[in-house]
Formats: sequence, structure tokens, C-alpha cells
Amino acid sequence: MDEPWHSCIDDELASCERLMEESLCFENEELTEMCRYVVLSGGKRLRPSMCILSYRACGGEDSSVPVAIGSAFEIVHSATLIHDDINDQGEIRRGRKTLHKEYTLTKAIVAGDCMFTIGFRLLSGVKSEVVDYIVGASGAMGAGEFVQKDHEHASGVTEDDYMQIISGKTAELFKACAMSGAYVAGGSKEQVDALGMFAYKVGLAFQIVDDTLDVVGDPHSMGKAVGTDLLEGKPTLPVIYAMQDEAHGDEIKALFEEPDVTRDIVVRTLRLISMTDSVPRCLEKAREIVREASRILDPIPDSIYKRSLLSLASYIVDRDR
Amino acid sequence: MDEPWHSCIDDELASCERLMEESLCFENEELTEMCRYVVLSGGKRLRPSMCILSYRACGGEDSSVPVAIGSAFEIVHSATLIHDDINDQGEIRRGRKTLHKEYTLTKAIVAGDCMFTIGFRLLSGVKSEVVDYIVGASGAMGAGEFVQKDHEHASGVTEDDYMQIISGKTAELFKACAMSGAYVAGGSKEQVDALGMFAYKVGLAFQIVDDTLDVVGDPHSMGKAVGTDLLEGKPTLPVIYAMQDEAHGDEIKALFEEPDVTRDIVVRTLRLISMTDSVPRCLEKAREIVREASRILDPIPDSIYKRSLLSLASYIVDRDR
Repeated sequence: MDEPWHSCIDDELASCERLMEESLCFENEELTEMCRYVVLSGGKRLRPSMCILSYRACGGEDSSVPVAIGSAFEIVHSATLIHDDINDQGEIRRGRKTLHKEYTLTKAIVAGDCMFTIGFRLLSGVKSEVVDYIVGASGAMGAGEFVQKDHEHASGVTEDDYMQIISGKTAELFKACAMSGAYVAGGSKEQVDALGMFAYKVGLAFQIVDDTLDVVGDPHSMGKAVGTDLLEGKPTLPVIYAMQDEAHGDEIKALFEEPDVTRDIVVRTLRLISMTDSVPRCLEKAREIVREASRILDPIPDSIYKRSLLSLASYIVDRDR
Repeated sequence: MDEPWHSCIDDELASCERLMEESLCFENEELTEMCRYVVLSGGKRLRPSMCILSYRACGGEDSSVPVAIGSAFEIVHSATLIHDDINDQGEIRRGRKTLHKEYTLTKAIVAGDCMFTIGFRLLSGVKSEVVDYIVGASGAMGAGEFVQKDHEHASGVTEDDYMQIISGKTAELFKACAMSGAYVAGGSKEQVDALGMFAYKVGLAFQIVDDTLDVVGDPHSMGKAVGTDLLEGKPTLPVIYAMQDEAHGDEIKALFEEPDVTRDIVVRTLRLISMTDSVPRCLEKAREIVREASRILDPIPDSIYKRSLLSLASYIVDRDR
């Protein structure tokens, strides 16, 4: 059997877990408990992995640096998840109640804010370029959310709109993780850019697959409900492709425009989507993006870390959760 | 007529305004507009002032450093105000609609998050101790909100509970501003601590007066509604003192415990509070704290900046908005 993609950095990932747990510590015990509830509840740690692998692939030797940066990125990412769940009225994440459901909205907003500050503290020793990367990515995340919000329930949304949304929501942060790792390892500009663009594309593919799993995934293995994007009228690629279907497109459009989405509408829409070629098209699109991504890594010399990045990219599109 | 307390740093405060406006700039225009809507809508700039005056009082000469730190603190503070307004369902701030009312809840949460990152970017060049100060203050702010939440509508809340709440919500950030300014100016440990404790106490007094104005202030000059704390069942000092009143205390307690507060209940409670000695007691408490604060500044040599800090402290308790 193949080794999992992350086996060459398992030690570093374990250090990330420890550092995140140590850092998320406040005088107020409930606040500590809430932050740890979110951050230490599993998660694939793709962002720290991107950072650590990029660092190693550029020859970096002191893993404590990308471990701190990767942990910072993961904590900031987790903070945005808390706020996303509030915005989306999400109830389940990673198989557990979302933070604002388990505690309260007020406390969840505050805990998210505190996590931002902890994330940035972890960056306080590192080069200011890294802070610039994460700030740029955060601005892009915000912008992505705005564009997404503006296209809710809008059947005129295009594939380009969607790519713009997921670029901001996901890909820019992946890119910032990889560039930070490569940069602090002393990688050349060409290497930093190559790893950044690779991670950006992997981020796009990751989000496409995520959105596709929301349409076809198994709720049990996903650890969350399916059809939630539809429930909120979010414009995702599987819906956009399905709305282009000759036989069922118009009906799906009408359902997607419905502002008051019931569970019934979701079930009907999911059934209609499954009758189109939307899901295979989405997965093919993700695979195509990953193939492009892999070619971008040519300037990076071969190493177990480069191979691990390539396996990570394959894992992204072949996962079922 | 006396000069206003801030006249010796008006140039630096103008630089703060410019720096905040420049920094709050995203590719997404609406995001930029939202952040500027909040930060550039006036406000007393007490936090940057604390930072700049402390820096100057310790002999610092390059004002660009405390201007950047002060702007960072003001932006982070503004981000927490956005999230506070969401939590409190506030509708008016500084005479204008709150951000989530003018835009949407989703966009307001995201804009707040983006502001955090911009605030921290402004700190990316400065000494890591400053980042530690702000992170400590943010944790305390979170904890203060938690304690406040736990005492909503609870007539058993004590003056000590209240002091703990406002210590976290307000005083710790004031302290961090002053300590940061004094520290980067190269002040001695004694000076850094003295300015920090001074600012901490001024922060306490500021919040007591703020909470008192919510009970007696003129809605027009305040730029926001009065009685809002009562509407949310927030445990503030004027309510705590009023609940101790022999003649009206029990009735005020009963009204404060009411979970579904109507505008009628607020009006009745405000009238009852005005019949007790609560408001003068609160103002005397604030003045006493400011007197203590002023004595703490003894280790700081006399200068226009030290005098300005003392005037700021007097202004805090004598303002009507």
C-alpha cells in the first residue's frame, strides 16, 4: 500500500498540533476551551502542510519556522471558519456542532477574534513579507465572500464568477502558505512563485471537490450535512454546470432562484443534479487543474517533499470527504 | 479658553487618520468602503492618543512609530466594535447606522476580520513585545465579553464583577496602547509600568462614564440611543448602584431580571434610576479613579505631553458624549 502523502512531515505536523494547543491558551478557561474545540477537532491540516512541504522542497532545514507559520495560517483559517459558520448558519462541522451552536453567537464571534490575534502573534517574529502574504490572502478571502454573497440565488452566475469566488475564499490562502514556506527557506523568486501558483491551483481544485462533495458526498464520512450550499443559495460549480443541462437546467435554475429554500427543494435539486453530467464535469475540471498544477512544479528539484506535494494534489481530488 | 487636551499631538493624530485611510484599502471596493465607514467616522482617537502621548512623554522623537502602533490599535479596536454591535444588535453608532445594519451581517463579520489583519500588518515591523501587549489585551477583551454575557439580567452582579468586565473590555487595551508607546520610546521599566497603569485606570473611568451616559446622556449629542445597555440586560455600574437603593432597588432588580426587555421597561428603569443616587455615585467613582491615575504619573518628568495626558484624564470624566 502507498504511504499517505504526509508521512514525510508527520513530525512537523505533530509539532503544529502541539504549538496550536499551547498558543490557544487564555486566562479565561471557556475561551481556551472554545478555541481548542475548533482548532483541535481534526481537519486535514492542508495549509500547514503546504507551508512545511514548500519550505522543505526549497531546502529549508529548521522546521520550527514553517511549523510556526503553518500553525498561524491554520489558526487564522479556523477563525474564519467560525465566522463562516455563523454567516452560513452552519450547524455541524467535522462531525460536531459548530461553535456558535455549542456555545453562543456572541461568544463564537469573540473567540474567532481572539484566534486572529493568536495567529498573528505566531507571526510576530517572522519576516514582514510573510505577514504581507497572509494579509493579502485575508483581504482576498473577504472579497471572495462578498462576491459569493452577491451571487446567492442568482441563476445568471457564471463559471468565471465562481472561479473568482473560490480564488479568494480558498486558493489565495493556500498560495500564501506555500509562498511563505518557500520564502523563509530562502527559495529563489522562481521557486517561491512556482510553489505559490501550484498551491493556488491545488486550492482551486480542493474547493471544487469540496463543493462537489456537498452535492454527492456521504454525510457520515463527510462529518457534515450535504446540500448545505444549496440551502443557502450558494453559487457552486456543480450547480452552475447543472443549470447548463439541456433537459433539467431550467428546472434547476428555477429552484436555485427560490429565496426560501426548504429541505424539500434541496432534495429535489440534488436529485435533478444527479441526472446531469455536472458531477463528473466538476471532478474532471478539478483533475485538469491539478494536472496543470503539477507541471508548474518543474523548477523545483526532485525530493521526497516535492513528491509529497504532488501526492497531496492527487489526494485532494480523489478524497471522499 | 483652555486648549483642548490633544492640541500638542494634533499633527500626529492627523497622520493616524491618513495612515488608517491608506491602510484600509482592498481590491474589493465595497470592503474598502465598509472598513473606512467604520474607522473614519470620527471617534475620539483615545487609543492612538494614549500611545503617542506616552511615547512623547518618555522622550521619543520619531512620531511615525507610535502613529503606526496607535493606528493599529485603533483599527483593531474598531474591528471589535463591529463585532460588538452585531452581538448587541446595536443599530446606531456615532450618529450613523451600525455596519451590519447598513450592509449585512455576513459582510460586517468579514469586514471586521479583514480589519484585524490590517491592524496586525501595521505592527509587522515593530518589536514583538508590542504584539504581545495587543494580543494580551485582545484575550482580556474576549474574557471581559464572556463575563459580561454571563451576568446579563443577573441582579446578583457585584461591583467587583463589573470592574472585571470593564477591565477586560476597555482598560487592558488602553494600558497596552500606553505601554507600547512608552516601550518603543525606550522608557524605563518604571515609566512603562506607570504609563500602563495610568492608562488602565483612565480606561476604567472612561468605561464607567460611558455606561453612565447610557443612562443619562442626551441621545442627540451622544450620536446613539440611550438605555441600550438596559435593553440588552448588560450589568453596568449605574444599574448595580441603583439596585442597592433602599427605596427603589428591589423594583429595579425585578425589571433588570426581566429577560424580554421592552422599550417600556427601559423607560421605567431609567426613571427609577434617576430617582436614586446612582449617577452621581458613578461619576464620583470615575473621578476618584482618575485622581488615583494622576498620582501614578509621578515618575514621568513634566512635559507638555504629560500635562496633555492629565487633561485627557480630566476630559474623560467631564465629557457629555
